[in-house]
Amino acid sequence: MTSRSRERSAATASAPSLQERANAEAVERICAAEPVLVDVRPAIEVVPGMTPETILTSGAPLEWDEYAGGQRAGIIGGALFEGLAEDAGDAEAKIRAGQIRVRPCQEHGCVGSLAGIYSASMPVFVVEDARRGNRGYCNLFEGVSPYRLNYGVYNEQVGENLRFLQEVVAPLLGQAVSLAGGVPLRPIIRRALHMGDELHSRNTAATLLFTRELFPALLELVGNRAGEVRKTFDYLKSSDYAFLRLSMASSKVAADAAHGVEGSSVVTAMAFNCRDFAVRVSGLGDHWFRGPLPTKFGAKLFEGYTENDIEFMGGESTINETVGLGGFAQAAAFALQDYQGGSAEKMVEANLAMYEIALAEHPEYRIPYLGFRGVPVGIDVHRVVATGITPLLDIGVAGKQGGQIGAGSYRAPLECFAAAVKEYARRYA
Amino acid sequence: MTSRSRERSAATASAPSLQERANAEAVERICAAEPVLVDVRPAIEVVPGMTPETILTSGAPLEWDEYAGGQRAGIIGGALFEGLAEDAGDAEAKIRAGQIRVRPCQEHGCVGSLAGIYSASMPVFVVEDARRGNRGYCNLFEGVSPYRLNYGVYNEQVGENLRFLQEVVAPLLGQAVSLAGGVPLRPIIRRALHMGDELHSRNTAATLLFTRELFPALLELVGNRAGEVRKTFDYLKSSDYAFLRLSMASSKVAADAAHGVEGSSVVTAMAFNCRDFAVRVSGLGDHWFRGPLPTKFGAKLFEGYTENDIEFMGGESTINETVGLGGFAQAAAFALQDYQGGSAEKMVEANLAMYEIALAEHPEYRIPYLGFRGVPVGIDVHRVVATGITPLLDIGVAGKQGGQIGAGSYRAPLECFAAAVKEYARRYA
Repeated sequence: MTSRSRERSAATASAPSLQERANAEAVERICAAEPVLVDVRPAIEVVPGMTPETILTSGAPLEWDEYAGGQRAGIIGGALFEGLAEDAGDAEAKIRAGQIRVRPCQEHGCVGSLAGIYSASMPVFVVEDARRGNRGYCNLFEGVSPYRLNYGVYNEQVGENLRFLQEVVAPLLGQAVSLAGGVPLRPIIRRALHMGDELHSRNTAATLLFTRELFPALLELVGNRAGEVRKTFDYLKSSDYAFLRLSMASSKVAADAAHGVEGSSVVTAMAFNCRDFAVRVSGLGDHWFRGPLPTKFGAKLFEGYTENDIEFMGGESTINETVGLGGFAQAAAFALQDYQGGSAEKMVEANLAMYEIALAEHPEYRIPYLGFRGVPVGIDVHRVVATGITPLLDIGVAGKQGGQIGAGSYRAPLECFAAAVKEYARRYA
Repeated sequence: MTSRSRERSAATASAPSLQERANAEAVERICAAEPVLVDVRPAIEVVPGMTPETILTSGAPLEWDEYAGGQRAGIIGGALFEGLAEDAGDAEAKIRAGQIRVRPCQEHGCVGSLAGIYSASMPVFVVEDARRGNRGYCNLFEGVSPYRLNYGVYNEQVGENLRFLQEVVAPLLGQAVSLAGGVPLRPIIRRALHMGDELHSRNTAATLLFTRELFPALLELVGNRAGEVRKTFDYLKSSDYAFLRLSMASSKVAADAAHGVEGSSVVTAMAFNCRDFAVRVSGLGDHWFRGPLPTKFGAKLFEGYTENDIEFMGGESTINETVGLGGFAQAAAFALQDYQGGSAEKMVEANLAMYEIALAEHPEYRIPYLGFRGVPVGIDVHRVVATGITPLLDIGVAGKQGGQIGAGSYRAPLECFAAAVKEYARRYA
């Protein structure tokens, strides 16, 4: 059943309402998106509204004093990496003075992994929706060390690694992408779902497929730039998560395509900052509807850690769940049990529940175990509130000392959806 | 539970019998095998007992007049490709006169896909068990055309493609493998099972992982041999089945390692020729126990074909099921529904049934959906006969006009296992 026909059949015999038409349109845009990686460039050159003194970070915006723990440390780390301040105290003073500007990623077309720190010189993947032309951006996976800027850690080693990405990996990837004439990401995501990925906490197949797409270009480049080609290949091989940033940017362009449809109650972003979880809704402008951080932990922690060590420091990779991946496609990725706990049975059950709150099924992104059923797409805030079922989020877990300490499936809080339903009723009364 | 402890717990309180000890040893050898691709060479240079006038073919040996249809055509095609005869009539005459020698693959360390035609100059993968040093061989996947020599077709195009493999792909792969210092296949198989492959009818992830292992060597070789590197990469990219020949050779070395254990009732080969299905048993020498071709079709045929078009023309890729892959690992590969029909539920049920006839579970090859349970390993002919459950085989389906017309899951016939049980009782009375 297409999203449109499903919308129609859900309607009464009378003509579809504004909400029904708007939601059909929003869902259609998500499903039609054809994300293509077109470039890899420093943020300052491509990100809308980026300035030399801007630091982007995950989640709905907060006052500076509200940023705490790893997210606060990450923002300061980003300022230091960019050379905007001498030390942490100087960075704080300049932030307070407005000389360093802290802004939410998503309002600049970006999407942040965990703390989601972007500074002007950092390279970003540039992903374009070939259907609508809108663009989304995501910076690069920092590698396999548990200590990374996006997990709230900044030190010499983290800085050195960021410079390696900036000076070696990103320019080479950019040239390879350009030689390849762009890399269509929809076919990679489609295939990866048949190969055990849900594209959030598991990107193993997608990373491999992406690497293979670049290989002919790497063969062309190796003659003059052998060292850089080998280092870039090693970077791509070293981690099964490299593609996560591309699935996030892909999801961002799909979700953004669906944003701003008058009358639509479809969720177009879900994001953490260190204090709250928030959603945006297509027909409700750029307002963030906030709710508390999840307290139901479904995490599997690395050895030596307990739940007391968990800290929320932001995270917008839940843009993937927003368009039907991650927790909405768990039944495609049973190997995730090993990484984030749970059982195959519970994963299937949790995945099936997501169909209850979604308006459609993706025509191409399909789950083999569910008889190739399309992933559930188009979270309707009304369905969430009516059923009490909230989105399931496959996320990395950060620790209080910084760094990744595990992974898990969490439930989004109901409060933000309830707030959106209330505002929807007020606005479209 | 390890294979040994499982063997023990199955035993009575008394000391384990000869059969129990022998089966534990056979299973241990299958599980311990560490197949490594060490070379790619013309058959004549490496295959034991190969001669310039030998043609190898799948299955238990038959008299020349018993070879029919595609398998007969394939043998003749092999002779023509090798330049051993002027035309089909000449080839037949020379076969009858003993000037061309037709021999079963597995008695020469090889394993045949479908008709399984090998001639002296054809390149083969050389796979060695790093634990025991024994070697197995498999020739190369012919590519995506449904018309291939191994599907009983020989014409100008098929010959040209075989020469391409011989002249371009194999020498380059051989050099790449050598530069890589060999390619360990066990880690690839282990990972591919977590990525939707069962390593028989689905080798998508394994082919990708294998290709990635060769990337660094291809990057080294491209300077002097750019054209060949690109063509070889394209060959590896063009088909998700390229790895099948490597999974077969891997299974062959594991099964051969377990063959010849006095007192063992573990199956060490399962093979089709055009007339029958046959098995070999570890403790029963090199005798093939034969049974009829399967009549229960679980096939999904390409558009335009019916069951009347199906022809059996041999096939030894069931060596994979012999050591716990393919039909014994279906629950790792739900995407196969698309290729060979069935449902996820039936795949799980069929997979679980295979544990009933196997003696152990592989310590490293695991199925995520089954809570990372090890694949069932060590088919015991007694268990097959006692339960009436016969091995499930994921195989390609050939058509009467030659070529592949589909794929499916078939049940091995009970008769060959019953004959083995009878002989076991006689021999070990």
